[in-house]
Amino acid sequence: MRTVSVIVCGFGRVGRAFADLVDSHAEVLAERYELHAQLVAAVDIGGAAVSPGGLPIPELLAHVESGGAPCSFGAHGRPGLSGVQAIEDPGADVLVETTPTNLDDGEPGRRHILAALGQGMEVVSATKGPLVLYYREIHDRAAEMGCGVHISAATAAALPTLDVGRVCLAGARVLSAEGILNGTTNYILTRMHTEGCEYGEALEGAQARGIAETDPTLDVEGWDTANKLVLIANRVFGASGGPGDVSVEGITGVTPSDVAGAVSVGRVIKLLGTAKVAGKGGGVTLAVAPVGLERSHPLAAVSGSEKALSYLTDTMDRVTVMGGRSSPQGAAAALLKDLINAFV
Amino acid sequence: MRTVSVIVCGFGRVGRAFADLVDSHAEVLAERYELHAQLVAAVDIGGAAVSPGGLPIPELLAHVESGGAPCSFGAHGRPGLSGVQAIEDPGADVLVETTPTNLDDGEPGRRHILAALGQGMEVVSATKGPLVLYYREIHDRAAEMGCGVHISAATAAALPTLDVGRVCLAGARVLSAEGILNGTTNYILTRMHTEGCEYGEALEGAQARGIAETDPTLDVEGWDTANKLVLIANRVFGASGGPGDVSVEGITGVTPSDVAGAVSVGRVIKLLGTAKVAGKGGGVTLAVAPVGLERSHPLAAVSGSEKALSYLTDTMDRVTVMGGRSSPQGAAAALLKDLINAFV
Repeated sequence: MRTVSVIVCGFGRVGRAFADLVDSHAEVLAERYELHAQLVAAVDIGGAAVSPGGLPIPELLAHVESGGAPCSFGAHGRPGLSGVQAIEDPGADVLVETTPTNLDDGEPGRRHILAALGQGMEVVSATKGPLVLYYREIHDRAAEMGCGVHISAATAAALPTLDVGRVCLAGARVLSAEGILNGTTNYILTRMHTEGCEYGEALEGAQARGIAETDPTLDVEGWDTANKLVLIANRVFGASGGPGDVSVEGITGVTPSDVAGAVSVGRVIKLLGTAKVAGKGGGVTLAVAPVGLERSHPLAAVSGSEKALSYLTDTMDRVTVMGGRSSPQGAAAALLKDLINAFV
Repeated sequence: MRTVSVIVCGFGRVGRAFADLVDSHAEVLAERYELHAQLVAAVDIGGAAVSPGGLPIPELLAHVESGGAPCSFGAHGRPGLSGVQAIEDPGADVLVETTPTNLDDGEPGRRHILAALGQGMEVVSATKGPLVLYYREIHDRAAEMGCGVHISAATAAALPTLDVGRVCLAGARVLSAEGILNGTTNYILTRMHTEGCEYGEALEGAQARGIAETDPTLDVEGWDTANKLVLIANRVFGASGGPGDVSVEGITGVTPSDVAGAVSVGRVIKLLGTAKVAGKGGGVTLAVAPVGLERSHPLAAVSGSEKALSYLTDTMDRVTVMGGRSSPQGAAAALLKDLINAFV
């Protein structure tokens, strides 16, 4: 049995769901992987709860869910302790980074990740900001320190985009990746198809059901898809691009007559993120745009808030993966998966 | 750069396609994985071609494709050398086992695999017979020797059934696996749906197109699906069953009126292999049967000779993978994938 000590930075819905999984799946970790994951610090903006011997997870979650903060968790509370301090002081085997995605400067995720790599820790991240904005810096620092940065949870959560591209297709040349990577926009487009309604009406429906956020810009303008696409391309094609390398068009301009026109020729409109290798030894072209897919395309039947990714390869032909829970628990499960695969 | 020496047993279409891939994808192996795979022996029923320094693959393939055999390949030819002798004498890092599947006694694959494990070699197998019939013996021997037996190519070839179940879903409890695991029967059922024809007519169409074999028993009676299902259940659920543990019903009894009846209630008939965990701590129930799937089921749209597998889990919900080339090259690509993942 190997004990893996874990620091969780960001103790919002994803961070707490991860802690809950570590507790509820302790038996799976032990029996199947001979791992014992121990939560040694949980950090949020106000401070941290710290215990080198392992925090009592159910009690910590009950404390936070009844309005408390990690920093006020009894004798373990450390008001004002920052993520970097927690990473550098008690130290741990792995950082699980779940602070909110910040697409302006990637903070505080970036400094957490760099501090953890500086300590020789493995990093598992659901936070997209630093990965998208500082991919090369983080990649190079990880290589220098001999550590891994595992980002499944930042690339469509429980949909196994990277594992499929890297493990399942090992040895094949990947020619392209096409994905429906954002559940909100797919839900809106699905409603526009099934109900023939306007974009605005479908968006309101999605907001009413809690599927779209109050400010849906990142989703509907295509940037969430673009960010995931960049990370997939960087990992699977060995690229090192950023959001600026993607041609991005969202779904706000899609009209009922566009939808009707697509349907009349047997197609369905999907917001597609596409990465294509441009010739042998060439670069990778990245684009996000609404595309009319033929009904026989494997992504055409992906409806509602479901996500999917389809790889085209030279030796295995097309391999498509779809599904995976879109929720904090789905993201937490992707974090746990990466942690396991990093240590087993 | 790490050199991995490889013995291929069985030099039929899959074995040759594998050798061809090792040659054509040498650059991918080197650049992406820092691996150099070296074919040190190719064995078929008449003997072997052997070269401890590595056989010249294009010349060997040209020799065999113009009617020669490995054992008559110039100075490298070793008439009468058996698979076990090749495995025990020159030795290698890995056995790639591609002899024809024998469901009576699993030979000669079984003795090849056991001989390789006895030498401490990794095993990569496309041959189902010994894996299905002697799963426990092979599993235990591999564990004893600290070697891996990698069987992606025996469980639906380029469709990544096991990688998804083991790597992509790591840490989740898999509750069930449902698969369309046989391309021939799915092709026949698809034709019965689209053309409303009898089973016999659809079978003849599949035979005319080279999709069904002259003796289609193994496919249409459900046993090919059952064999793949057993291997998936053993690997993903940690079971150790055999074909006798599967309730098997094929598609020969499916009639046009069954198809019409399913369609009239919005369903589509698929030959489904299903593995379900029976209660907490319980065993795994295995069944193969034609099932009327609702149109919204993720496997309902899998048509023609395509294959797919859908896992239901506790924390990631449903994850479905589909596609992958169904051909000797697809199986060879799965062999190469397993080889890479075993050594990287």
